[in-house]
Amino acid sequence: MVVKVLRLGHRPVRDKRISTHLALVARAFGAEELIYTGVQDKGFKESVEKVVDSWGGRFQLKHSESWKKVFKEFDGQIVHLSMYGEDFQKKVPELSEDLLVVVGGKKVPSQVFDESDFNLSVGNQPHSEVSALGVFLYEFFGPEGLYKDFEGAERKINPSARSKDVESLTN
Amino acid sequence: MVVKVLRLGHRPVRDKRISTHLALVARAFGAEELIYTGVQDKGFKESVEKVVDSWGGRFQLKHSESWKKVFKEFDGQIVHLSMYGEDFQKKVPELSEDLLVVVGGKKVPSQVFDESDFNLSVGNQPHSEVSALGVFLYEFFGPEGLYKDFEGAERKINPSARSKDVESLTN
Repeated sequence: MVVKVLRLGHRPVRDKRISTHLALVARAFGAEELIYTGVQDKGFKESVEKVVDSWGGRFQLKHSESWKKVFKEFDGQIVHLSMYGEDFQKKVPELSEDLLVVVGGKKVPSQVFDESDFNLSVGNQPHSEVSALGVFLYEFFGPEGLYKDFEGAERKINPSARSKDVESLTN
Repeated sequence: MVVKVLRLGHRPVRDKRISTHLALVARAFGAEELIYTGVQDKGFKESVEKVVDSWGGRFQLKHSESWKKVFKEFDGQIVHLSMYGEDFQKKVPELSEDLLVVVGGKKVPSQVFDESDFNLSVGNQPHSEVSALGVFLYEFFGPEGLYKDFEGAERKINPSARSKDVESLTN
């Protein structure tokens, strides 16, 4: 099973936080990589690497010059998340195990709609690509996807009703 | 059933997009109102009102001086979403129909943990409040919550496998 996320058209100043949220969601819900197109951004990379260093796992952030190249090289199904697409709940059972999940970007080229295997919506209302990605991956991996261990973490959280229980794992 | 969202500590420049995403998620997934504390922000209000004008429904954005006031005035259960909390999946069946869902804010006062009825996590990894809110509401309302009609909309989307099918509802 290989799940990667492709974020289209990153703009460093305007999109920094949204793109970082997308990367954290991709990682937390079980994807192994986020590839982004648009402007290459050191600060974005550093934010993500800092999280991986502390919280573990092998999640990677990569930049690509072109979504077409990413589409071409990916060996699996391509799912474009869009408010215009078909109801994702109906299609998740048809998906294969290897997925590239594509999220916009303000202006998504119509070729992305044409060349994706599925255009799927998480609701048809104006929404958020961050939440759409989270809900989609939650539905795709199933609820247990959220509570796995991340190898090599320096710390982990023990769920608590009232306090912040953070356990250090280094010695 | 009354579901409201409380966003703590909004900062106009830094949080504009994240807070707007939170409001869109709250609306799209069936909440009726987002209340925010922090700095009052006209631009934020205008963005949300523009969406409601075009896409319908009665979603409202409100500002409050203090989370304590919001907690006090709310008649129902208060659920604080936090990466430190208990697994939300186990607790959703215990929740009442009237909910105030609280999301941070960089520095959440420890009193928020104390005075909430539940502190719940959507995974215990660094994540995104936008996605946490989406996944929580998706689990709480059930999948059908996402595809309801919004009264008074000027347009709506007809889900499509390949194209952007936007229907105008005004004449």
